[in-house]
Amino acid sequence: MLRSHTCGELRLSNINDNVTLCGWVQKRRDFGSMSFVDLRDRYGITQLSFNEDYDKTLVESARSLAREFVIQITGKVTERSNKNLKIPTGEVEIVVDSLKILNASLTPPFTIEDDTDGGEEIRLKYRYLDLRRNPVQSKLLVRHAANKAIRNFLNGEDFVEVETPYLIKSTPEGARDFVVPSRMNQNQFYALPQSPQTFKQLLMVSGLDRYYQVVKCFRDEDFRADRQPEFTQIDCEMTFVERDDVLKIFEQMIRQLFHESVNYDLGEIPVITYADAIETYGSDKPDMRFGMTFNNITSIAKGYNFGIFDNAESILSICAKGAASLTRKEIDAITDYVKRPQIGAKGLIYCRVNEDGSFKSSVDKFFDQEALALWAEANKAEPGDIIFVLSGDLSSTQKQLNELRLHLGDKLNLRKTNEFKACWVVDFPLLEWDEETERYHAMHHPFTSPIVEDLSLIETDPGAIRANAYDMAINGMEVGGGSIRIHDKALQQRMFDLLGFTTEEAKAQFGFLMNAFEYGAPPHGGIAFGFDRLCAILTGTDSIRDVIAFPKNNMGRDVMIDAPSPISDEQKKELGL
Amino acid sequence: MLRSHTCGELRLSNINDNVTLCGWVQKRRDFGSMSFVDLRDRYGITQLSFNEDYDKTLVESARSLAREFVIQITGKVTERSNKNLKIPTGEVEIVVDSLKILNASLTPPFTIEDDTDGGEEIRLKYRYLDLRRNPVQSKLLVRHAANKAIRNFLNGEDFVEVETPYLIKSTPEGARDFVVPSRMNQNQFYALPQSPQTFKQLLMVSGLDRYYQVVKCFRDEDFRADRQPEFTQIDCEMTFVERDDVLKIFEQMIRQLFHESVNYDLGEIPVITYADAIETYGSDKPDMRFGMTFNNITSIAKGYNFGIFDNAESILSICAKGAASLTRKEIDAITDYVKRPQIGAKGLIYCRVNEDGSFKSSVDKFFDQEALALWAEANKAEPGDIIFVLSGDLSSTQKQLNELRLHLGDKLNLRKTNEFKACWVVDFPLLEWDEETERYHAMHHPFTSPIVEDLSLIETDPGAIRANAYDMAINGMEVGGGSIRIHDKALQQRMFDLLGFTTEEAKAQFGFLMNAFEYGAPPHGGIAFGFDRLCAILTGTDSIRDVIAFPKNNMGRDVMIDAPSPISDEQKKELGL
Repeated sequence: MLRSHTCGELRLSNINDNVTLCGWVQKRRDFGSMSFVDLRDRYGITQLSFNEDYDKTLVESARSLAREFVIQITGKVTERSNKNLKIPTGEVEIVVDSLKILNASLTPPFTIEDDTDGGEEIRLKYRYLDLRRNPVQSKLLVRHAANKAIRNFLNGEDFVEVETPYLIKSTPEGARDFVVPSRMNQNQFYALPQSPQTFKQLLMVSGLDRYYQVVKCFRDEDFRADRQPEFTQIDCEMTFVERDDVLKIFEQMIRQLFHESVNYDLGEIPVITYADAIETYGSDKPDMRFGMTFNNITSIAKGYNFGIFDNAESILSICAKGAASLTRKEIDAITDYVKRPQIGAKGLIYCRVNEDGSFKSSVDKFFDQEALALWAEANKAEPGDIIFVLSGDLSSTQKQLNELRLHLGDKLNLRKTNEFKACWVVDFPLLEWDEETERYHAMHHPFTSPIVEDLSLIETDPGAIRANAYDMAINGMEVGGGSIRIHDKALQQRMFDLLGFTTEEAKAQFGFLMNAFEYGAPPHGGIAFGFDRLCAILTGTDSIRDVIAFPKNNMGRDVMIDAPSPISDEQKKELGL
Repeated sequence: MLRSHTCGELRLSNINDNVTLCGWVQKRRDFGSMSFVDLRDRYGITQLSFNEDYDKTLVESARSLAREFVIQITGKVTERSNKNLKIPTGEVEIVVDSLKILNASLTPPFTIEDDTDGGEEIRLKYRYLDLRRNPVQSKLLVRHAANKAIRNFLNGEDFVEVETPYLIKSTPEGARDFVVPSRMNQNQFYALPQSPQTFKQLLMVSGLDRYYQVVKCFRDEDFRADRQPEFTQIDCEMTFVERDDVLKIFEQMIRQLFHESVNYDLGEIPVITYADAIETYGSDKPDMRFGMTFNNITSIAKGYNFGIFDNAESILSICAKGAASLTRKEIDAITDYVKRPQIGAKGLIYCRVNEDGSFKSSVDKFFDQEALALWAEANKAEPGDIIFVLSGDLSSTQKQLNELRLHLGDKLNLRKTNEFKACWVVDFPLLEWDEETERYHAMHHPFTSPIVEDLSLIETDPGAIRANAYDMAINGMEVGGGSIRIHDKALQQRMFDLLGFTTEEAKAQFGFLMNAFEYGAPPHGGIAFGFDRLCAILTGTDSIRDVIAFPKNNMGRDVMIDAPSPISDEQKKELGL
């Protein structure tokens, strides 16, 4: 090794040790006959001191060092007179007796500091320099810790990691595949997997019993903010299980993940039905860090000659605790927020509960104190609170009120990045009707099992069938989802019929899975977690780009290596393109 | 859970427990009023017993069970009268009181037994059934254990797993890339990585210090036996290290791997130079499980009027201990073996050492007992041994004698699959001359550092420069290789010149790496291990297909899912193909 210790290792107990360190020059300060250098590596920062009285040439060399030079020094560990107790190495410094420049550095295009002066574009282009910055590097270290925690848990529960293939077959169902032309089989293509779904089901048919994989998946979508064409999944499947077995084991996994990687106790993870989640939060991935749940006041707010309410299918309200002090201007801004076309509310009605228990609403003309008291009662509103009300058709109003709730959560600082709340959402609809193609689509995927009691609806009201499917949401973001799968060939065939697959299409795309089901397929189910999203939540960042070492930009380009890029005519010819 | 225990779990201590088991019907035997079923899962086999005296309908149901049916049973654990001590569950059986068929099975196209009647093609097509067989499934379990062992070791040594991108840029150097057409950037392509080489070097520039990744890589080669278009590497890189640091840490890793996954002590791993390996074994990946090293007898075997020797550049010999008993017929077969065009020896000369110490050679006409005694001395041959001699130009003779040595090793049972011997080979040539293109190629890759003492040869004799590179071989197979990298931009430029890259070519292909080297690149080095090959060695199989869950055949096809395959015209049009 070119060093005896790392830059994060030396303490008072090392006083008088002769050491060799390597690292990058973070900062240099010159004072009279002395120079000090902060030497940095992944493990920390150690102060080096150079003294003219001791070695004049050495100080001259030290003064030639600029930021990001790579150096190797030897010296003696001594106690600092001017201690920095903010860092673990801050009680010592190295009195340097030899210095070797291992590599010089140009001045970096942005400062390598926690708060850098570089914009995102230049930092992506010089990602290897951005990765030297503590806030960026530390996220990759949390990602590594998270990966370890998950593997430790799954290994301990008898899950076996099996690598499934990356060069597979394209299926027209779902999102677009990335394809790979085959040179050896001209005019034929491999596809990159959007998920190892069918392979993990085959592994259950093969009796592997418990499978997992931390695996890259690929989706050729039209790019939008915070989507990456390649992403990482924690993909899992189990045999001889029912829904609650799956929920139990992966609740444990996620709790262990939070405990081991960021030392946070998630607590028990509540289970709510899709129907309840929509009714209570207007969302199938509710942010459980705060309450402010929906209260339906349709029956008590109609009949007051307020046309908007009287003509509305539904009138829904939420209560923001202690927020009566919101100014008129703030309420106007909130109103503008929900009236943005992306959200689409026609207006926003509010009702303050004054300290004396009286009410002040934006519709006092129609609703007297008694009428407003009913709203307050429904919302359990107390003096100092404010009630917001939206109305319209049920589904749109739920969506709009969800947006309002999240917006108020942000404004009132109820969504803290260092607080985590998870929930399971279960009993999703099995199918969703697609207006455009006029047929049902699988809400999850065509292998999801229906809930047995709902099977009788398959002919009469397929849209009402609930799926034996579950999602996990943390802090209002979906982090994972899965289902108990169909293991019965006849039922699978029925599902394909319902989804409008002809027998030929089903056979061409999933024939091998249907075949496999002929040979003793066991009951099985599983789940997949979005690892990038989990890591973003763990590190308190909004963008998954921040937890990916070399991300693509929003146009799917790697601006550092300049990919994608043209290939030679010769290459194209060989591939028959 | 649909079961209370697995099929590998119950013991005498469970007697009288009421249990629920799930699994596959391995075998059924009917005797008078009794039926027995062997129930199988990943964890083992448990015997079920059904008794007519106890429940007649149940026995009837049991007798409807065929091989590979999936069933769930409940019953009581009892002691077997007829114990099978070969399996851990063999002292108990379950007296069944209820039976549920979870799924029926067609008769599998081959028997699900250790020795199956299915050929390779049909087993690949029904891979999910082949994976039910113990010899196949157990290899995946060893692979999982190997993966765990490697990660445990590297995590403990402060290596950080970082995922590098799969959609990267095509580089014309080296083997062919698989490419991925970009829909969003028409006429541009991503490439799938042949290795994360440049990314791991960038991670060292970024100060990650110690990196690893268990990662899929891709190479579009003309297929031949036992090559897969996608394969898995254990990819590692370290900063501030010299060669011996790398060798030391990865010797530990490989020893821990063998210890944890197959409970084998590899012992210390010897280091030999490339020059010595070629001189002693005629191979840069010598099989160290047995001796039979080369002895050069050129100087003592010339001058006896034996034209073949007198005209040969080199005369090389090996001694097969205790093999004097090989019959004339066997020696003829060995001679035919080395005369095959793939090996190309003109003939094979031998000399037996008789029990009385006299010699009997195939060239007694030219060499008397005294002359042959010199051969014996050079080969340390003793009574009962046999010496084989090949001659010709040095390089060809070394290659031929290597093949002969390995062949004799097989014949004499010196290459046991349950014995493992590793070695490091170091000081490889940096460059190799390519006759076709009339220029030097990098023997490893263009980022490999030369050995400092040899740098002076760069102008005069570049072919003689040794690389600071190292390979690990186990049982005669290369399992890993790496090098200390160039971290100096000027030296890297020099290397590109030597390899005939124009400045523009170097810039277009590796510009981002050259750029990165401007900003304080640290000294670094690393290694990559072929994980499939390692697993094949650990499980004693010749073919890496055996340790891959869903392998491609020799034509690069997945015959189970039928990939690659045509894609729709619409898909092609969208991609601009």
